[in-house]
Amino acid sequence: MIGNDIHKLAKQLWPYNRSLTGQGVIDTLNQISNHIPNLNIKSIKSGTKVFDWVIPKEWEVHEAYIVTPNGKKICDFSKNNLHLVGYSIPFKGTLSLNELKKNLYTLPKQPKAIPYITSYYKERWGFCLSQEQFDTLDDGLYKIVISSTLSDGKMNYGELLIKGKSDKEIFLSTYICHPSMANNELSGPTVVTFLAKWLQMVNQLEYSYRIVFIPETIGSIAYLSQNFKEMKDKTIAGYNVTCVGDDRAYSFVPSRNGKTISDKIGKHVLKWIDRNFVQYSWLDRGSDERQYCAPGIDLPIASILRTKYGEYDEYHTSLDDLENVVTPKGLNGGYWAIRKAIEAIEKNKKYKVSVKCEPQMSKRGLYPTLSTKAFDKEVKLMMDFISFCDGECSLLEIADNLNVPMWDLYDIAQKLESHNLIHVNK
Amino acid sequence: MIGNDIHKLAKQLWPYNRSLTGQGVIDTLNQISNHIPNLNIKSIKSGTKVFDWVIPKEWEVHEAYIVTPNGKKICDFSKNNLHLVGYSIPFKGTLSLNELKKNLYTLPKQPKAIPYITSYYKERWGFCLSQEQFDTLDDGLYKIVISSTLSDGKMNYGELLIKGKSDKEIFLSTYICHPSMANNELSGPTVVTFLAKWLQMVNQLEYSYRIVFIPETIGSIAYLSQNFKEMKDKTIAGYNVTCVGDDRAYSFVPSRNGKTISDKIGKHVLKWIDRNFVQYSWLDRGSDERQYCAPGIDLPIASILRTKYGEYDEYHTSLDDLENVVTPKGLNGGYWAIRKAIEAIEKNKKYKVSVKCEPQMSKRGLYPTLSTKAFDKEVKLMMDFISFCDGECSLLEIADNLNVPMWDLYDIAQKLESHNLIHVNK
Amino acid sequence: MIGNDIHKLAKQLWPYNRSLTGQGVIDTLNQISNHIPNLNIKSIKSGTKVFDWVIPKEWEVHEAYIVTPNGKKICDFSKNNLHLVGYSIPFKGTLSLNELKKNLYTLPKQPKAIPYITSYYKERWGFCLSQEQFDTLDDGLYKIVISSTLSDGKMNYGELLIKGKSDKEIFLSTYICHPSMANNELSGPTVVTFLAKWLQMVNQLEYSYRIVFIPETIGSIAYLSQNFKEMKDKTIAGYNVTCVGDDRAYSFVPSRNGKTISDKIGKHVLKWIDRNFVQYSWLDRGSDERQYCAPGIDLPIASILRTKYGEYDEYHTSLDDLENVVTPKGLNGGYWAIRKAIEAIEKNKKYKVSVKCEPQMSKRGLYPTLSTKAFDKEVKLMMDFISFCDGECSLLEIADNLNVPMWDLYDIAQKLESHNLIHVNK
Repeated sequence: MIGNDIHKLAKQLWPYNRSLTGQGVIDTLNQISNHIPNLNIKSIKSGTKVFDWVIPKEWEVHEAYIVTPNGKKICDFSKNNLHLVGYSIPFKGTLSLNELKKNLYTLPKQPKAIPYITSYYKERWGFCLSQEQFDTLDDGLYKIVISSTLSDGKMNYGELLIKGKSDKEIFLSTYICHPSMANNELSGPTVVTFLAKWLQMVNQLEYSYRIVFIPETIGSIAYLSQNFKEMKDKTIAGYNVTCVGDDRAYSFVPSRNGKTISDKIGKHVLKWIDRNFVQYSWLDRGSDERQYCAPGIDLPIASILRTKYGEYDEYHTSLDDLENVVTPKGLNGGYWAIRKAIEAIEKNKKYKVSVKCEPQMSKRGLYPTLSTKAFDKEVKLMMDFISFCDGECSLLEIADNLNVPMWDLYDIAQKLESHNLIHVNK
Repeated sequence: MIGNDIHKLAKQLWPYNRSLTGQGVIDTLNQISNHIPNLNIKSIKSGTKVFDWVIPKEWEVHEAYIVTPNGKKICDFSKNNLHLVGYSIPFKGTLSLNELKKNLYTLPKQPKAIPYITSYYKERWGFCLSQEQFDTLDDGLYKIVISSTLSDGKMNYGELLIKGKSDKEIFLSTYICHPSMANNELSGPTVVTFLAKWLQMVNQLEYSYRIVFIPETIGSIAYLSQNFKEMKDKTIAGYNVTCVGDDRAYSFVPSRNGKTISDKIGKHVLKWIDRNFVQYSWLDRGSDERQYCAPGIDLPIASILRTKYGEYDEYHTSLDDLENVVTPKGLNGGYWAIRKAIEAIEKNKKYKVSVKCEPQMSKRGLYPTLSTKAFDKEVKLMMDFISFCDGECSLLEIADNLNVPMWDLYDIAQKLESHNLIHVNK
Repeated sequence: MIGNDIHKLAKQLWPYNRSLTGQGVIDTLNQISNHIPNLNIKSIKSGTKVFDWVIPKEWEVHEAYIVTPNGKKICDFSKNNLHLVGYSIPFKGTLSLNELKKNLYTLPKQPKAIPYITSYYKERWGFCLSQEQFDTLDDGLYKIVISSTLSDGKMNYGELLIKGKSDKEIFLSTYICHPSMANNELSGPTVVTFLAKWLQMVNQLEYSYRIVFIPETIGSIAYLSQNFKEMKDKTIAGYNVTCVGDDRAYSFVPSRNGKTISDKIGKHVLKWIDRNFVQYSWLDRGSDERQYCAPGIDLPIASILRTKYGEYDEYHTSLDDLENVVTPKGLNGGYWAIRKAIEAIEKNKKYKVSVKCEPQMSKRGLYPTLSTKAFDKEVKLMMDFISFCDGECSLLEIADNLNVPMWDLYDIAQKLESHNLIHVNK
């Protein structure tokens, strides 16, 4: 089960302090490069204007912690990088508990969880801790140490281009900016890493592939600002990959358009994997499809997920881990759902029957020679399939007409093609 | 509450003997002119051919009553103008009860109600009375007096044109041919009078307005016969206004087409005013939309109503009054439903976001600077709104996508426009 | 009731040994010619290539039976032609019961039924018998006699062309290749015979008619191979006629397209004959619509049936008879359903109202002169009808809009046309 390998990679990536920028991102990309050596690690300078936004300063953290009145070190960044508010500015000082509290963040309703908080675009500092720990804090003077830097540097991301028979591209995007969290986010880049490995082994891909590992929002905006025209020309389908690691549900978030081939294939695949998959609307979006499908951008990008961001209690807390939330089985399901969607797009051709009226199947050994009341199910499926090979129905549409998953038709199509009874209609 | 003012006007108009023609129509139009001084009172001569019809003779009634065998005056037109069949020819004579009964009309199932009966296109005379009164009539000789005239004269109507930024017009039509009845009809011309007053006070209307006060059927046919070509060029939306005065329901009668902007806006507005509004079909039509939407005419005219004609017991009887049926609150609801529809058409623009990808809202103070699990509802509504500003979705379509009333978006659109984040797409 | 006459013809045709070819087909066509003398009986030579298929050899049976060890003659073809597997090759010999059993066919789940089995495209022989008879067979030697010939000859079929005002054609196809079975098949050719008789008596048909009596599958493929181009140009609608003889249900099998006029009219007619008619999908097809609607052929051919082939226990067995399954009443219903569909296609015109706005009906005596609360149902239907006479709605669409069967509008349309109030829009 490939889910075990994916889970292993996620464990390796767990400790790095991913954010929009900084060493944690570089370390993550380097680890991924061990699996896909031709990954291009690229960068954009801080201060670069990207559409309505500006690439932020590079953030590094050397150490960060609080010392309590009785000398205990708490909220230690080196133990859990969620303790420090993302993009915290440097600060050293001594504060009373009341003063300190203005910079402490907890989740009263989830008292054991450390929340995940960031402040990318306003300079501030803060610590995150569990409500339970917060409640033990005594009055007195607290020593605060945040040794961080915010400096003109760069924002890194990874890009992989795979050549297929056609220049037309399928786009996969995943993000690498969240620190130690499992479903949202490590499931995304790890599943995409293994999808990239598989795609590079496939013989004769129909389409080319563009795969990016970027920080969320600012990363996709920056990438689009540099590649939009080419992507608009080439992209025929794609998925934003996030929250593909738990085993509690399958979910779908459509593109803004809602009727692109990514939407149709995504929903078809999920329906046949799990009749009860959760279908969200565009109003439930929340990741980089916000940029890829923005008005005027409108790329055909949807999301195939397990349990969606925002829809599970552990979301954006220290409880979103690789033990209780994300599992090898969950990752395995996420991997195969997206792989089946990619395979379906690759095989979604329009076939045309090569003879007028029904072909005589029996002379080719494809039909029983004795006509009785009974009728073979597989023969019926084949005859039904042929009856839709009009050169205009796609394999997806035929599968939907026949109420079967597309993959039930792959062998039939191949067999009929080998008998010259159908051919692809260009 | 404007409903009080509307109700007051209705009480003033109550006693006039409105019909297709005659002094009651002129008196009604003159009273309305007190509120909208620039109302044009126009006329067409009896005998004028209008499409398949001919303008009827002008009808005046000087007196009409019956004297019973024991000398009592009944069915006195001066006490209730419903007592006389509309367009009754003059008649003086003495008849036995049995002979008289051939010209008497009652409603056995509504024994207290005087029915409303007309005979515009065949010469006859008759009296209407309650079944209860009818049942008290003794045998004997009855003296009949109908002092009426049917002469070559004219048919009057009112027309008001209001200039907006665009030559394109919104059309409002209401009728002034029914005598003393309240929901059907006084609610119509009185509500339209107050809508016209409001429209004339609005600063910078997007569209021009054509508003007519006409007799039903023959009036709309006559008006179309003279103005059809211009109206076909200019009319983008409109409503026939009738039965907008009781407080028992909201209703909608579509145009023949069913999908014009008048239909879409009308149903949107009613849905958000009253989830349980009654949606009728074209087969339930019964007023001047029959002409405005006739094949080959096909103007985009629908009807927003309170309780529809034909759908309440008091309809077309003396029970359709200003006390028990039509109320200030009912008129108020009718006025606001149509006003909200007009406002929605005025504001139903197509917006286009001015930047590529999502705008950075936080630098404009439109977005929280701290990223947490929680998400502000208003901010979400604004981001959802922006996500549909593609220059092709109308405000109505966006509101439907977001499942909110259009008026929830008016302020958001204005705020984003003032930040140059969106602009109207011409 | 015409069903009685149809049933009588079916009884006459019962004993003939119909198959793809042979004397039974010729005898059947000759009998039908007694009713429609201008029927063309045509033929195609064995060995002729027709699209992907080849016309088979001509099959004749002189005698066929089995003699049991104790000298009893069983499975005698002269008593029931279902006993012999269709297209059995000649065979004479003596076999043990075990050897014989390899060539015996029964239906264990229907122990009293003789199954209907054919082997057109692989040379073999066999006998069909009831499971009950099969169970009585004792061990011993059986003498087999099949005196049949398979020789280069011809395949016969009948064709009738009826000229209407337009060259555009309505196509009726039925098959004549099944031996003694009643619903599937004698109901088909007998009902079509009486439809052809009726059509030839109609004064001024709008459309021309092409009617064929052919063997199933190979017959329709052969006919298409010779007439496809002309049929593609001319055919505007049509039905494959089969299983129209029992009185247990009405059913509909759509064309592949599903939205042709044959589909729309067929479903409309059946809905108004029997609200509970069974609507099948293209996936439930099974007769010559497989050829007429094959990709690239795509003629507008659907099926109006009583109980569909494959959907009743007696199907393709000796139990499908003229006593228990097919009845005069069943045939009558099948005849009228198709006749009503044909009439509806003939009358499915687009009407345009001749005046602007509503016509004044009262001056033509088509409307009450007194306006009261009540409203006549027939007058309302007429006014509703006029309101859709825009030159673009077909009579079918208007009937669906008004929720009435098309035939309720035939007289109204005629009356309005005679008053010059509507005219056909070409």
